[in-house]
Amino acid sequence: MARSTRESILVAAGELLRCKGYAAVSVKDIVTASGAPIGSLYHHFPGGKEQIVRESLLSAAGAYALLIPALLAEHEDLGVGMRHVFAQAADDMATTGFANMCPIGSVAGEIADSHESLRAATAAIFASWIDGGTTYFAARGLDDAAARQVTTTVVAGLEGAFLLARAMRDVAPIVEMGNVLGARWAGVRLTSGAPAELR
Amino acid sequence: MARSTRESILVAAGELLRCKGYAAVSVKDIVTASGAPIGSLYHHFPGGKEQIVRESLLSAAGAYALLIPALLAEHEDLGVGMRHVFAQAADDMATTGFANMCPIGSVAGEIADSHESLRAATAAIFASWIDGGTTYFAARGLDDAAARQVTTTVVAGLEGAFLLARAMRDVAPIVEMGNVLGARWAGVRLTSGAPAELR
Repeated sequence: MARSTRESILVAAGELLRCKGYAAVSVKDIVTASGAPIGSLYHHFPGGKEQIVRESLLSAAGAYALLIPALLAEHEDLGVGMRHVFAQAADDMATTGFANMCPIGSVAGEIADSHESLRAATAAIFASWIDGGTTYFAARGLDDAAARQVTTTVVAGLEGAFLLARAMRDVAPIVEMGNVLGARWAGVRLTSGAPAELR
Repeated sequence: MARSTRESILVAAGELLRCKGYAAVSVKDIVTASGAPIGSLYHHFPGGKEQIVRESLLSAAGAYALLIPALLAEHEDLGVGMRHVFAQAADDMATTGFANMCPIGSVAGEIADSHESLRAATAAIFASWIDGGTTYFAARGLDDAAARQVTTTVVAGLEGAFLLARAMRDVAPIVEMGNVLGARWAGVRLTSGAPAELR
């Protein structure tokens, strides 16, 4: 019961952050959207809005970390796999009416110069994605430097392409980024040695 | 005199947007930072905050459009030129203490799902950069489709890399994006036929 209230607060906060960013969301908005009594909210999150937002982003980040390995699982050519990753992202964005695909990215841009504890949380999330992806690509046969370079540019490429696509209501930036990264890595072979927990 | 007050309001708003995003900036903040009387603010901008923000972003966007042509002017190899563009961006970010390099990107991410008129303004800015860059690269010898692809992915690549770099306080994402795009376009020759107004 306590756990369910806690989770409903984090999920409600996550949805609000996706749509409105950080500053435009109040604790009252989160109370209303989650249906949790305000006393319960401060019981679970004594740090208030900043703690809720931090935990909501960290909680959302875990699911995102699984997406790229899942999309690459059946590919042996990194270039072909990359086009698939970006094509899938473009499809998802178009079919959801250009919904925000990554609340972490939007909040990170808004608060990087003004909320140090949240900036540190978004930094930790990006670092965990990059470290996890580096481990994944290394397990599939890339050397460590290449694995890190691929992961870093895929994450940055997705975030930047999402930003343009959402603003322009056009998936072309996502598709074009996939075409360029796909061409860069065409013919780079991925082995099938991915660790089970990243498949 | 009237023009100077108007400009001081737009510049003050731009600085606040860079640091705090859209929702966290109030009209009162803009009044205080610009030193303009509030009556004067509504005289120049009867649409209030949304109009000021829209015009401030549009005004900032023009300067950014000149950066890539300026950085590529002396390069004949697109791959080498791209590394130079991203290396310069990484240097600028490091030497400014990871200041927000692009207020348009930050605001675009925050308001894309919640402020339609501002979303349309950021879309128009991105479209103008992409159209301008396409014209530039076409004048330097790329076919139209390649010119548009290069411009779109450079803008998206910079925006995404800026986002990660600001959050992580680390220029590696910018440098790595430059390395990957530089390798993709190594050996692609740029002619010297850039139109004078874009040099």
